[in-house]
Amino acid sequence: MPIPTPAMVTTDCAVFRVSEHKLEVLLIARANAPFAGCWALPGGFLEPDETLAECAARELVEETGVVPDYLEQLASYGDPGRDPRGRTVTIAYLGLKSDTAQSLAAADDAADARWFAVSSLPSLAFDHARIIADALTRLRAKLSYSSIALKLLPAEFPLSALQNVCEAILGHPLDKRNFRKQILGLGVVEDTGRRQRLGQHRPAMLYRAATTRGIQIFR
Amino acid sequence: MPIPTPAMVTTDCAVFRVSEHKLEVLLIARANAPFAGCWALPGGFLEPDETLAECAARELVEETGVVPDYLEQLASYGDPGRDPRGRTVTIAYLGLKSDTAQSLAAADDAADARWFAVSSLPSLAFDHARIIADALTRLRAKLSYSSIALKLLPAEFPLSALQNVCEAILGHPLDKRNFRKQILGLGVVEDTGRRQRLGQHRPAMLYRAATTRGIQIFR
Repeated sequence: MPIPTPAMVTTDCAVFRVSEHKLEVLLIARANAPFAGCWALPGGFLEPDETLAECAARELVEETGVVPDYLEQLASYGDPGRDPRGRTVTIAYLGLKSDTAQSLAAADDAADARWFAVSSLPSLAFDHARIIADALTRLRAKLSYSSIALKLLPAEFPLSALQNVCEAILGHPLDKRNFRKQILGLGVVEDTGRRQRLGQHRPAMLYRAATTRGIQIFR
Repeated sequence: MPIPTPAMVTTDCAVFRVSEHKLEVLLIARANAPFAGCWALPGGFLEPDETLAECAARELVEETGVVPDYLEQLASYGDPGRDPRGRTVTIAYLGLKSDTAQSLAAADDAADARWFAVSSLPSLAFDHARIIADALTRLRAKLSYSSIALKLLPAEFPLSALQNVCEAILGHPLDKRNFRKQILGLGVVEDTGRRQRLGQHRPAMLYRAATTRGIQIFR
């Protein structure tokens, strides 16, 4: 019979929002060693009676006050030496937050909590820079085959708002006509029949998440 | 400072192949408690100096002799109570094997190793039925936006062989003309300029994985 290696299990959350055309990720300043004072993803140790997803959501709200609109498991990270306290495997989650007005409430193991533009991140504890890079890769890839970007928007939105979110995630502008054609072709949004006036422009159609599934090749 | 919950960490591999038009998954009969004699995914405890992916590959070859052509991290499973030995988090991997001729070599913690059609699986230990279901969902979804199916084929193949693999994964037949149009549209294969005679039919063009990337919307 093999002898199991004792290990610690944590969860960490990379939660993104789009604010003023910029993609941002939520970080905390660590209150305790190791990496005390260093910026890191919100997260912490798995408790005895909770699932991995419950741990991720609990640590996030304890350390930042944020309840995400979307949370999916990203990947696990367990390289030897990634944590100076001993063998630690972390289950990382990718989160999205649509509301950009909510204030943060750093507490528990977090001395501070802030949104950082992903284009100018501070130095990060552990392997959290790699986790954020992987989360960004996942998020960018999922734009092409899922409705994930809608989790960064209110329930009803003009297509220009969705384009703004996609541009912030990708980090470059998109051609308006091609974008409209591609997003409507994906079948992930449907028009509500209602229009909204934005500034001096003519009223823009409001869209919402499609109630039917989007196109999937080979279904 | 929080007190970490002691936990055990394992890896498990759901390795698939397509043999005689059927999608199959590799299982072992457990030599030891818990679930002794029960069928399960090959896997085992993380060792001190290995990465998660190294553990997955090591346990797979120790218990079955199989070296996969492709291995990607699927997800982690850590519900309380999923292992009667105590809190255990497993990092599951999705593997693919193109060679259907290699014989299996059960050893170590495996009393037996066999390929089972996914359409008629035996009763499984732990939450391994759920892991296989999730691996199948991932594999089916990735047909639409990746070149993953090519990992189940030799380096050069007629499109009919790729269609056969996709049909086995999806569990239903595909229209030949639509399939050819869609797979060529994805840009994941390119023709080799060489043809192969299959039985009485006229020689079929041989394809290979495209050296350029496939189409990605919004790039």
